[in-house]
Amino acid sequence: MSRRACDTLIRADRIVTQNDERTIIEDGGIAIAAGRIAAVGPWMEIDAAWQGETVMNLGRSMVLPGLVNAHTHASMTLMRGLADDLPLMEWITQHIFPVEQKLTPELVRLGATLACCEMARTGTTAFYDMYLMEQAVAEAADATGMRAVVGEVIFSFPTPAYANLDAACDVVRAMHDTYRNNDRIRTAVMPHAVYTTTPELLTRTAKLAEELDIPLHIHLAETTTETAQCMEKFGKRPVAYLDSLGLLSPRTLAAHCVDLTDDEIRRLAETGTRVAHNPESNMKLASGIARVRDMADAGVVLGLGTDGACSNNNLDMFAEMSTCALLQKVATMDPTVAPAQQVLDMATRGGAACLNWPGIGSIEPGNLADITALDLDQPGLMPMYNPASHAVYAASGGDVRMTMVGGEVVYRDGAFPKVDYPALLAEVRSAAAWVRKQFEGNGK
Amino acid sequence: MSRRACDTLIRADRIVTQNDERTIIEDGGIAIAAGRIAAVGPWMEIDAAWQGETVMNLGRSMVLPGLVNAHTHASMTLMRGLADDLPLMEWITQHIFPVEQKLTPELVRLGATLACCEMARTGTTAFYDMYLMEQAVAEAADATGMRAVVGEVIFSFPTPAYANLDAACDVVRAMHDTYRNNDRIRTAVMPHAVYTTTPELLTRTAKLAEELDIPLHIHLAETTTETAQCMEKFGKRPVAYLDSLGLLSPRTLAAHCVDLTDDEIRRLAETGTRVAHNPESNMKLASGIARVRDMADAGVVLGLGTDGACSNNNLDMFAEMSTCALLQKVATMDPTVAPAQQVLDMATRGGAACLNWPGIGSIEPGNLADITALDLDQPGLMPMYNPASHAVYAASGGDVRMTMVGGEVVYRDGAFPKVDYPALLAEVRSAAAWVRKQFEGNGK
Repeated sequence: MSRRACDTLIRADRIVTQNDERTIIEDGGIAIAAGRIAAVGPWMEIDAAWQGETVMNLGRSMVLPGLVNAHTHASMTLMRGLADDLPLMEWITQHIFPVEQKLTPELVRLGATLACCEMARTGTTAFYDMYLMEQAVAEAADATGMRAVVGEVIFSFPTPAYANLDAACDVVRAMHDTYRNNDRIRTAVMPHAVYTTTPELLTRTAKLAEELDIPLHIHLAETTTETAQCMEKFGKRPVAYLDSLGLLSPRTLAAHCVDLTDDEIRRLAETGTRVAHNPESNMKLASGIARVRDMADAGVVLGLGTDGACSNNNLDMFAEMSTCALLQKVATMDPTVAPAQQVLDMATRGGAACLNWPGIGSIEPGNLADITALDLDQPGLMPMYNPASHAVYAASGGDVRMTMVGGEVVYRDGAFPKVDYPALLAEVRSAAAWVRKQFEGNGK
Repeated sequence: MSRRACDTLIRADRIVTQNDERTIIEDGGIAIAAGRIAAVGPWMEIDAAWQGETVMNLGRSMVLPGLVNAHTHASMTLMRGLADDLPLMEWITQHIFPVEQKLTPELVRLGATLACCEMARTGTTAFYDMYLMEQAVAEAADATGMRAVVGEVIFSFPTPAYANLDAACDVVRAMHDTYRNNDRIRTAVMPHAVYTTTPELLTRTAKLAEELDIPLHIHLAETTTETAQCMEKFGKRPVAYLDSLGLLSPRTLAAHCVDLTDDEIRRLAETGTRVAHNPESNMKLASGIARVRDMADAGVVLGLGTDGACSNNNLDMFAEMSTCALLQKVATMDPTVAPAQQVLDMATRGGAACLNWPGIGSIEPGNLADITALDLDQPGLMPMYNPASHAVYAASGGDVRMTMVGGEVVYRDGAFPKVDYPALLAEVRSAAAWVRKQFEGNGK
């Protein structure tokens, strides 16, 4: 029987499919054609049925679906470590916003390109990104081969990208037009948060998302301060406020959701609103501990995100998974909470749901070929008894040896095939000198 | 003027000395002679004064003192990920102890050798280790070039290493004799914990430590369960109980110290007792959150440790630093708590104090040449504004490119010069099959 042709055959010691049955395949193979997974199974079967133009033998590797970073601000890599150990409001108003007001599209693109390299290097294949001058992030994601849902952040005040709400909506429409036929880049509508917008702005952005039939993303219930301000200004807690404006739905991804009541958790579940949990950022800014166990028990769709590199300070989703699991255990004083498989699900299948992007988050026939591979010969990944435990508790992004998006390699063994990496580093160094100058000009 | 001869000259973009002034040197150099740091300063000055037999240009690297893992059980790497997401008592009695009772010195040596590779690969140069058949750990640390304080764990019941307390003390004496002239391996006396020993055992081990003039290491106040048991059995909380037996002193390193009262914190500070903080293990086993801020404020000498790989599940001290800082912030709801510099101090200078080993923990003339280097060209470490922030929040062990102990390279760019690494991996794979069999024979 002749073998069917495909573009790439992958062989690896373990394949963690993250399919409905969470099948794990030993000595497995994946056939990839036209950017999608054509078949996955034991290597003997795959090899007998498929002829690959390229054969990638990853040997003692554990292959996983590419991780999905459900909430980030990629370009903030440019300010990584610029200001730490500060309260959120002081940090954002005195350190981050002043630098951001002086950003240019070139700098946003540069920071996002660096972030894409970091994500590829640490096993992330798709991310949900909110920032200003986001068009430049879209270009960076496109050029580096990453998958992204991108959106211009919308405030009720002007930014370098727009003068008013009309202009902001035009920016969203234009980006949507630009990327409507792109396989890897999708747009979303992104009002920043309840404390930086008006009811009119939120209603208008929700309508825009419906009209364009694209997702909506917002920061929500990040701190008790936000809750207090929302109560004072709008007479409702943040979730109820959004609910009253019709913004809770499966279309909406809410980031953080730290300060929630039982009723609010029930309401997020009922409405199918997606939640991106950001444990490292919530810890670093002392925002609080999200009730992941209660949200999961209530049936809230949960993903995991790093937030920006300034409040983390990395984009490593393997580290984020570990922190997520460990924090929930100690917060509930129950070591059985947030078991490894559940957390791995959040970072893969849950991420796919957060991005509203069927076809990612698991290695299954028909899905997009978004894949990463951990090097099991690293001393920290030896020996191996339980793949999900390994991914969540033992691995770090530094153990990744290959990352692929839509069948195209974006990172392999120290190299970024889609990026002139030495040139990128030189540009980042020069941009960092500029950032430091703004920062110091800022009285620091 | 002729240059003085030395063994090795290191050049790197940044040197984080961790000296009293926390000096950071740009384009720095280190001269190493006879395993010690002969000089450190700007490269121009070092290069003008010293002639190195070897010159190691680490380019865009950040050089730090090797990290000190103040509490671990190295050989437990062999059981990494064997059992997770379980309560401490079920985990240890039903899963870990049964396998440990069947361990052989060969397996202990193998697990420790793997652990030494993982530590070297992730920037740790020295560790404080407690286990059974610890002689095999000492041999592994010696052979792999690592620095270690080792001690046979002493219970009030027999282990594969001894039949009774007399025999256990003989094991300690014999190890002390073996390593008394070793530059890198020192012994300590290690009663396991208050819940696995008797007052007689604790008194006797304390006397032995005094007699041999070596440190003493014990698990202490790890959980509220331990406190309750100690109250019931001995009528005192764990710290008071140890205090009444004379075990609190600068000679003693207490691991965990999670369940502490204000008075106990004061007493630990007064007596100079060292504390090894183990955040990831305490989180994973849901033991609780140690009061690091309060201990630091009271003047307790604090180090940082990973605990064993089973309750972590890695030995990466960069990850541990990040978790330590983030957890304290969210636990106190104050983002200024546990700032990066303080946490880096715990993992370096604090670790040196925990090991009672002057001459490690900082890069200063006269100190031992225990050094590690992070690759600043990794995307996750670009750009760089603040070295301490980078080490604590951004870096992972996967970013390490070189680790050196006493002037000898133990890891560099993927290679372990002191280990036949492929042979080690093959041995670990075969040992893992044995471990899995014991585990399954155990009804799992």
